[in-house]
Amino acid sequence: MKVVVVLSGGLDSTVLLASALEQGFEVRAITFDYGQRHNREIQSAIRVAHHFGLDPGNTHKLIDISHVGEQLLQGSALTSPSVEVPLGHYADPSMRITVVPNRNMIMLSIAAGWAISLSCGAVALGVHAGDHAVYPDCRPRFFAAAEEALRLGNYVSLTVMTPFIDWTKAAIVKHGAELKAPFELSWSCYQGGEKHCGKCGTCVERREAFQLAGVPDPTEYFV
Amino acid sequence: MKVVVVLSGGLDSTVLLASALEQGFEVRAITFDYGQRHNREIQSAIRVAHHFGLDPGNTHKLIDISHVGEQLLQGSALTSPSVEVPLGHYADPSMRITVVPNRNMIMLSIAAGWAISLSCGAVALGVHAGDHAVYPDCRPRFFAAAEEALRLGNYVSLTVMTPFIDWTKAAIVKHGAELKAPFELSWSCYQGGEKHCGKCGTCVERREAFQLAGVPDPTEYFV
Repeated sequence: MKVVVVLSGGLDSTVLLASALEQGFEVRAITFDYGQRHNREIQSAIRVAHHFGLDPGNTHKLIDISHVGEQLLQGSALTSPSVEVPLGHYADPSMRITVVPNRNMIMLSIAAGWAISLSCGAVALGVHAGDHAVYPDCRPRFFAAAEEALRLGNYVSLTVMTPFIDWTKAAIVKHGAELKAPFELSWSCYQGGEKHCGKCGTCVERREAFQLAGVPDPTEYFV
Repeated sequence: MKVVVVLSGGLDSTVLLASALEQGFEVRAITFDYGQRHNREIQSAIRVAHHFGLDPGNTHKLIDISHVGEQLLQGSALTSPSVEVPLGHYADPSMRITVVPNRNMIMLSIAAGWAISLSCGAVALGVHAGDHAVYPDCRPRFFAAAEEALRLGNYVSLTVMTPFIDWTKAAIVKHGAELKAPFELSWSCYQGGEKHCGKCGTCVERREAFQLAGVPDPTEYFV
């Protein structure tokens, strides 16, 4: 079966891509520039796709909808330069300011359109249990409803695959280590500097996941 | 209440905009360039928005996602130059080739993201009963599922307004005539030439709607 993987360049989608390939799926990957502050992750997505032999512009599409983020999806720390990225734990209520309005539905909708055009049977996303507290569009019932909307809105049915949706990030790191996923190419930090800042919610969560998994962390953190 | 109207530049969304303003909604409009063959309709959307005093780039956003259509949503007569637009009635099975994969979910998702960012309570689309035969993403149950996905995927609830969803196009023309909607500025033809071709499904449906409504048709058709 063919599957379209939404590849952000983060740790979770990097392991998802490794996992889909390992399971024998014929993989297409799609990466979105939605005007995110940490567009450094897009470079990571390109490197990860290259690592796995995907072909830029063909089996790996980079889709620039940065104007959508900049003109329409304002108010989030990830799309509004004037809103600061909060420090602290990824699941803290303060992280709500990093929610981008309707982000996953936008990305899923476009990825699904491509999947249908390619006669792919599925779209896969690397959301995990740690996302649920803050991001409503990472919860199981959102994906169930979105899958139903996709089924009703098109002549073909697509499966929305979210294999890590009940996993901790530590479990994803363990799985990635087994698959020899290129963790060092992936990017988590919301600040999007030269190195991972080590203090923002995603850095805290990333570092903690490696520790809990007992897997050496190849990430260079600023602090 | 504030509402985001998806304005294609076609007849239905032109009347929808007129109707929303007449009902006292504070209106924002959004128009998508998704690489449609008949991008002539975008010029119509700009003229219609101007007619109603909307402000380009501010209360009327033109969003260019033509690369999404060109790179991802291939196989439709509306996005693939090599696929011809069929002639005949709008409800003919042959019109299926004009279906663009997941088009309404993509546009609704982006419009909804903007609506949430603006604290709008609703997104409105001008779909009508004549669309149901060929376009699954114009049917009531699709919009019900999409509204549910939007509710579950965000911290605020949005209403997806489709006031014409059970109306014939003739009823929309009648309503538009009462509102003095600028029919002459709107565009239907899928061929997208200088004039309406008069032969494609949307031209046939447009002409028929004026005749059935008993409203003078200001459209200049090629044949």
